Amino acid sequence: MKTLRLAVLPGDGIGIEVTETTLPVFEKLGVPVDVQFGDIGWEFWKKEGNPVPERTWELIESSDATMIAAITSKPHAQAMAELSQELRETGVSYLSPVIQLRQRLGLFANVRPVFSIPGNPRQIADNMNFTVIRENTEGLYAGFDFSPIPDELFEFIQRKKGARSSWQMESPMDGAVALRLMTRDGVKRLLHFAFQCARDQGYPRVTWVDKPNVMRESGQFCLDILEEVAAEYPGIPWEVQNVDATAMWMVRDPGHFGVIVSENQFGDILSDLGAGLMGGLGLAPSANLGAEKAYFEPVHGSAPKHAGKGIVNPSAMFLTTSLTLKHHGYTDQADAIQRAVASVIEEGKVLTYDLGGNATTREMADAILARL
Amino acid sequence: MKTLRLAVLPGDGIGIEVTETTLPVFEKLGVPVDVQFGDIGWEFWKKEGNPVPERTWELIESSDATMIAAITSKPHAQAMAELSQELRETGVSYLSPVIQLRQRLGLFANVRPVFSIPGNPRQIADNMNFTVIRENTEGLYAGFDFSPIPDELFEFIQRKKGARSSWQMESPMDGAVALRLMTRDGVKRLLHFAFQCARDQGYPRVTWVDKPNVMRESGQFCLDILEEVAAEYPGIPWEVQNVDATAMWMVRDPGHFGVIVSENQFGDILSDLGAGLMGGLGLAPSANLGAEKAYFEPVHGSAPKHAGKGIVNPSAMFLTTSLTLKHHGYTDQADAIQRAVASVIEEGKVLTYDLGGNATTREMADAILARL
Ligand SMILES: CC(C)[C@H](C(=O)O)[C@@H](O)C(=O)O
Ligand SMILES: CC(C)[C@H](C(=O)O)[C@@H](O)C(=O)O
Repeated sequence: MKTLRLAVLPGDGIGIEVTETTLPVFEKLGVPVDVQFGDIGWEFWKKEGNPVPERTWELIESSDATMIAAITSKPHAQAMAELSQELRETGVSYLSPVIQLRQRLGLFANVRPVFSIPGNPRQIADNMNFTVIRENTEGLYAGFDFSPIPDELFEFIQRKKGARSSWQMESPMDGAVALRLMTRDGVKRLLHFAFQCARDQGYPRVTWVDKPNVMRESGQFCLDILEEVAAEYPGIPWEVQNVDATAMWMVRDPGHFGVIVSENQFGDILSDLGAGLMGGLGLAPSANLGAEKAYFEPVHGSAPKHAGKGIVNPSAMFLTTSLTLKHHGYTDQADAIQRAVASVIEEGKVLTYDLGGNATTREMADAILARL
Repeated sequence: MKTLRLAVLPGDGIGIEVTETTLPVFEKLGVPVDVQFGDIGWEFWKKEGNPVPERTWELIESSDATMIAAITSKPHAQAMAELSQELRETGVSYLSPVIQLRQRLGLFANVRPVFSIPGNPRQIADNMNFTVIRENTEGLYAGFDFSPIPDELFEFIQRKKGARSSWQMESPMDGAVALRLMTRDGVKRLLHFAFQCARDQGYPRVTWVDKPNVMRESGQFCLDILEEVAAEYPGIPWEVQNVDATAMWMVRDPGHFGVIVSENQFGDILSDLGAGLMGGLGLAPSANLGAEKAYFEPVHGSAPKHAGKGIVNPSAMFLTTSLTLKHHGYTDQADAIQRAVASVIEEGKVLTYDLGGNATTREMADAILARL
């Protein structure tokens, strides 16, 4: 086997502890890896004024695979107070490192599997097996968010305002605006990816989720592309749902879904909802994929409240490792990790608090490792 | 008791059958009402080219209270085919009647209670008692949705694009854009409403839901207003959550919430999710409230698939009637309806299919009426 050059970016908070306890998995599985740790997150913002230092971009560039554990996306007030006077005065703001990575590396597909595990005490159904694919670079996260409203936009809004609206704005200071932007190329590559995923992994259908009954123009723009793309995958059933209805049906009948594909913000919401159906973020892995690069991370955040206590569930990180290996061709090893996590949960003896147990992060990780 | 002048707009699809079976409730309760039926929805678009005829606006204007049952928001392809050649050629599009009402009447607060009912076989938890308050006139539903992208916006976007983005657009035809617009007055009145609701109804906390970790500017705009408004309600605990996390926590720990208050689109998603937690849209009522006017409706739509079969759950319409009465001061009668619905569900004998039974709409309605 070829050695996998692996960039590991533990990041902030609980990222450190889930990384530490999960990394032995490669040796256990006999997958030859060359692990290089990389710097990312709030600590490097504090020290260097840059949460993704240039050396980290280089490391990612020169690695076969990148795994991230958890990174502060927006510092809390307390964290802000730790900043040096100097840094505070630059007025530069801390941009979410994961969003920087997704945009700069063109990782347009954020893939988030949702699945039942026999015996999982917290899941709401035992027939879940779908994947949420979230557009990862545009939509409401494209970076066009303003307050006060820029003059050009303010004038545009006042001009188009129409009599039917009840709200008023006197000046650009009286409002805020964010743009939900979709591009033809962006929607097209996303949908191709979704249909290919359904085909390759045998999912029963593709569900495009948007709100075309209200957002008629951008909605129709996407529907036209959907029809075009779907026609290239004749065997795959597809449907359109309104995002509100999807949120309801994911709870009521999660077994219905195969691939759910959506805009960035909607996908963000639905994938966390999916994690909720599984019993929380402790079990939810994700892959951020582009045409060339990729990185893998648990859906959970840095959870400052829990950091350093050694109590969080390491499963999401194990399952993230599984996605990483699968993406790089180590299918058997990837499956083995999934089975090991499932078997520890099914046995129900060594579980962290989120699954109703009182094991530590290390104890649950060791239980998983022991089954490999 | 003063006679309540009630405008009843049955609308489309299942709207007709749930209205018919629910209306006897007023007589049963001894509430004197003068019911005037009003025309609204797809039928009137087909006949008159206007889904909310002028006479309906007048009826609403001259009534004390307005109840809607269900209205087509966006016609399906089949419905479109029924349109006259003439109407199709005008190129005027069918605008969602409920959005027209919300905007023109300034009904800024869409109130959607979520609650457990002892014995409800489909709810996911038995300790739910919260209300989703959704902004109802602006946000992503403010009506600024475009494809192709208008020239002014296209230039603006190209100019601000920044190097970090991976997407490309060559021409305004290559994209679509929708604006999420929040105004200071709009956010302020919404938040006052939410805090007053928490205070008056004794909810344990107010949760403001947005995505300020990504939408920093519009997010902060709202947070500033939130701090200001919250300061006027010193006894009421409040918190801020990211919308993705809220979707997860609503499943994991719905008992935590009191008032959830959010932008139009996020509130749309979270309130349908709330209905999902209750076991579906069959039980979810809503109130659309403004400074002067109001209308009340079930959260469910016209459900063309089920229309005319007489099988859907009338409970949402009964509970909508309950909200209507409560709003107009008939508190005891409103409570009686709630108790009657709950008692039929708790008994579990006369339930529609969505609750696992096989009763018809009329049978379940009659069972509810029999308990009043
Ligand atoms: C941290 C944040 C920027 C991020 C997002 O919303 O994309 C996170 O919630 C996620 O889902 O990966
Ligand atoms: C029909 C549609 C316009 C409406 C909305 O999204 O507001 C509906 O889904 C609702 O929730 O009342």
